[in-house]
Amino acid sequence: MRLNENYLNVKESYLFSEIAKKVNDYAAQNPDKKIIRMGIGDVTLPLAPVVIEAMHKAVDEMGVKESFRGYGPEQGYDFLREKIVAYYKENTIRIDMDEVFISDGAKSDVGNITDLFDKDNLVLVPDPVYPVYVDTNIMNGRKIEYMQAKASNGFCPLPVSGTKADVIYLCSPNNPTGAVFTTEQLKAWVDYALKNDAVILFDAAYEAFIGDPSLPRSIYEIDGAKRCAIEFCSLSKTAGFTGTRCGYTIVPKDLKVKVSKLKLLKIDSDVVQLNKLWLRRQTTKFNGVAYIIQRAAEAVFTPEGRAQIKENIDYYKENAKIIADTMDEVGIKYFGGINSPYIWLECPNNMRSWEFFDYLLENINVVGTPGAGFGANGEGYFRLTAFSDRESTIEAMERFKELFIRKPEPEQEPESEAEPDATELVIEEPAAGAETGTEAESDAE
Amino acid sequence: MRLNENYLNVKESYLFSEIAKKVNDYAAQNPDKKIIRMGIGDVTLPLAPVVIEAMHKAVDEMGVKESFRGYGPEQGYDFLREKIVAYYKENTIRIDMDEVFISDGAKSDVGNITDLFDKDNLVLVPDPVYPVYVDTNIMNGRKIEYMQAKASNGFCPLPVSGTKADVIYLCSPNNPTGAVFTTEQLKAWVDYALKNDAVILFDAAYEAFIGDPSLPRSIYEIDGAKRCAIEFCSLSKTAGFTGTRCGYTIVPKDLKVKVSKLKLLKIDSDVVQLNKLWLRRQTTKFNGVAYIIQRAAEAVFTPEGRAQIKENIDYYKENAKIIADTMDEVGIKYFGGINSPYIWLECPNNMRSWEFFDYLLENINVVGTPGAGFGANGEGYFRLTAFSDRESTIEAMERFKELFIRKPEPEQEPESEAEPDATELVIEEPAAGAETGTEAESDAE
Repeated sequence: MRLNENYLNVKESYLFSEIAKKVNDYAAQNPDKKIIRMGIGDVTLPLAPVVIEAMHKAVDEMGVKESFRGYGPEQGYDFLREKIVAYYKENTIRIDMDEVFISDGAKSDVGNITDLFDKDNLVLVPDPVYPVYVDTNIMNGRKIEYMQAKASNGFCPLPVSGTKADVIYLCSPNNPTGAVFTTEQLKAWVDYALKNDAVILFDAAYEAFIGDPSLPRSIYEIDGAKRCAIEFCSLSKTAGFTGTRCGYTIVPKDLKVKVSKLKLLKIDSDVVQLNKLWLRRQTTKFNGVAYIIQRAAEAVFTPEGRAQIKENIDYYKENAKIIADTMDEVGIKYFGGINSPYIWLECPNNMRSWEFFDYLLENINVVGTPGAGFGANGEGYFRLTAFSDRESTIEAMERFKELFIRKPEPEQEPESEAEPDATELVIEEPAAGAETGTEAESDAE
Repeated sequence: MRLNENYLNVKESYLFSEIAKKVNDYAAQNPDKKIIRMGIGDVTLPLAPVVIEAMHKAVDEMGVKESFRGYGPEQGYDFLREKIVAYYKENTIRIDMDEVFISDGAKSDVGNITDLFDKDNLVLVPDPVYPVYVDTNIMNGRKIEYMQAKASNGFCPLPVSGTKADVIYLCSPNNPTGAVFTTEQLKAWVDYALKNDAVILFDAAYEAFIGDPSLPRSIYEIDGAKRCAIEFCSLSKTAGFTGTRCGYTIVPKDLKVKVSKLKLLKIDSDVVQLNKLWLRRQTTKFNGVAYIIQRAAEAVFTPEGRAQIKENIDYYKENAKIIADTMDEVGIKYFGGINSPYIWLECPNNMRSWEFFDYLLENINVVGTPGAGFGANGEGYFRLTAFSDRESTIEAMERFKELFIRKPEPEQEPESEAEPDATELVIEEPAAGAETGTEAESDAE
């Protein structure tokens, strides 16, 4: 058998597995330390009561012959897709039922959608970037170009003339930077895509964190987006479904792609709907999401569910504020943290990302994600998430203050392995940091 | 964007969607008819009590902060993988924990595994075949060759000299034919694969239906199989999980593939473990199965769970026997039906598969699957499943007897649309049919 050797071009370990390994090793060697994990963006609050109730009910149904459910529709049950259509409608976006595909999570769909694209496409991804966008395309041998997300553009890169991309990944609110595209910025991308026959893959996994009504929560708020964009949504962060696994993807029927090899076709048109191809992909390589899980997801979209998950989102947003305020206080520059669960900070004292990772882990036992793991432009940055619980967030921030404001006490034992840097850090003035922080936020959004 | 135009070579509708459409249309036009569905292989018995209990418990855990679970390991929780390792051990097969991958079902894994293979591989699939094997490879533009499964080889084709296949799909007990490979037959395939550096994709989704202890339930019962075979298992039919979604795939660490493009590699070996690549694929494009579902699956493997699911499997096997006995009685030849939930019958009176489909639907309102939908060799055959409930199975078989033994009463209304064929059928002698049935079974197994 001949291997798809593109796989050998992918880095062997996935960023978060690498972090987990480092942390586990540290924990094994330091069993007495209380590690606070603010690295992987995993939620900590339990599922909402209305979701729990819906699942108990669904489980009972599965135990009785009359209400038992076998194979469901691969695209998802109507009861859930109706709710999602209504959710979009609230936002004045009209989506048809057959444009909604229920999945086991945005990560699967973002990865699997690339099945529909030829190897010979130029893929544009932001740098820094959620690694899945890059790795899945390397696995298929596609050429990747990076759009430069930097402090200077608030980590919201815009189309650059001269590049003719075919597939464009946008993530807003952004993972990892927390930056959120404005309507004007997204419009620039939609216009670019329409002009270049490109497809935008819009990752809206964090849309529920947008509080500012002037910021777009869906790319379909932009005119013309239905002709060029696929939107990926997830209940992972919206409703704490990271371990329950449900997301949904919108593939508009207006999104049509030109066909080149007419001779091979039985179709009477020179364009094809991606919606139909994605349905074909999902009916062939997927068997739908568990009935119980779809009932759980349905509950999220009830008025009661919406109120309950809002409480959770507000809780995480308050965590984000606590982190942002602390960064202001200790004079660390950052982006995000307002309409996003992520705080993207500049490593102080010109530390590199992994250096800062080790520094935090060893000195204050706080785990974050090295920005360099997200791409070259992430070097020197570091991601903290607001998904820890309140106590841990506060404690982690206290430790930050301890480390960055007060000089740490020298270790008593002579064989101390404390990082020399820990006592030599030159900290910027908090005031300057606070100002930059504010500036960064407005840039980012 | 350039399309992966291989998708345009796939038939637009998936076989079972096509059947569903036909049946729905018929039902809409004939709302008074009681249709019995023995087409798609979907189970009808509810989940076992031990599974229901485990899910309620897991749901409760998800509602409490202290026991809430977020992202799980992509490869699956240890508690479940341990149980699967032990299940293999009972069968004297030693599998390591890190060779077990939990998934949302065999269909996903069987489809997604092709990600690891280069386009340039010769794929060998049986004809007739579970359509997923073919469609997923067409989607990647791979060359497919068919091995001829026919009545003359009991629908268990063996390697043919002269063909050098790279990837080989085997399914035993077979979907759709119900045929089961013997140890000797599987050994021939393992030997062939080892000799040709081929990989066998062994679909064992129906292994739990094998009652005959002389028949292999896992390909790893064959010496050398760990060096050439991946095994796909599912709880869909084993434990009624078609709507609950959980399966598992075994990728042995001994399964190594030669690497050609050494220049690109950072690895210090000229072979690579498929286990590592599959892990990389799953950690990148998948986020694991819901915690609740994995707890449900774990319960299946407890002694209590095993006893409960055995009852269900026995129930379906009794259905299979009822169907097989009826075929004997009405003189229709068939394969399978003993160590398999499928009965693969020869359409009587030289009818073609879709003709027989329409004939049954219109005359006795029984839905089956046309053999032609599974490939050229399936033409003239028809699949019935044993997964209906007992009453429906008995009623469907009564209708069979009515149709095939007694001549149907002429319709009273002058505008009757009864099929002319219905009254003109020439039925074979039951005795001959019974004999052939028996012969077929022994051939098949």
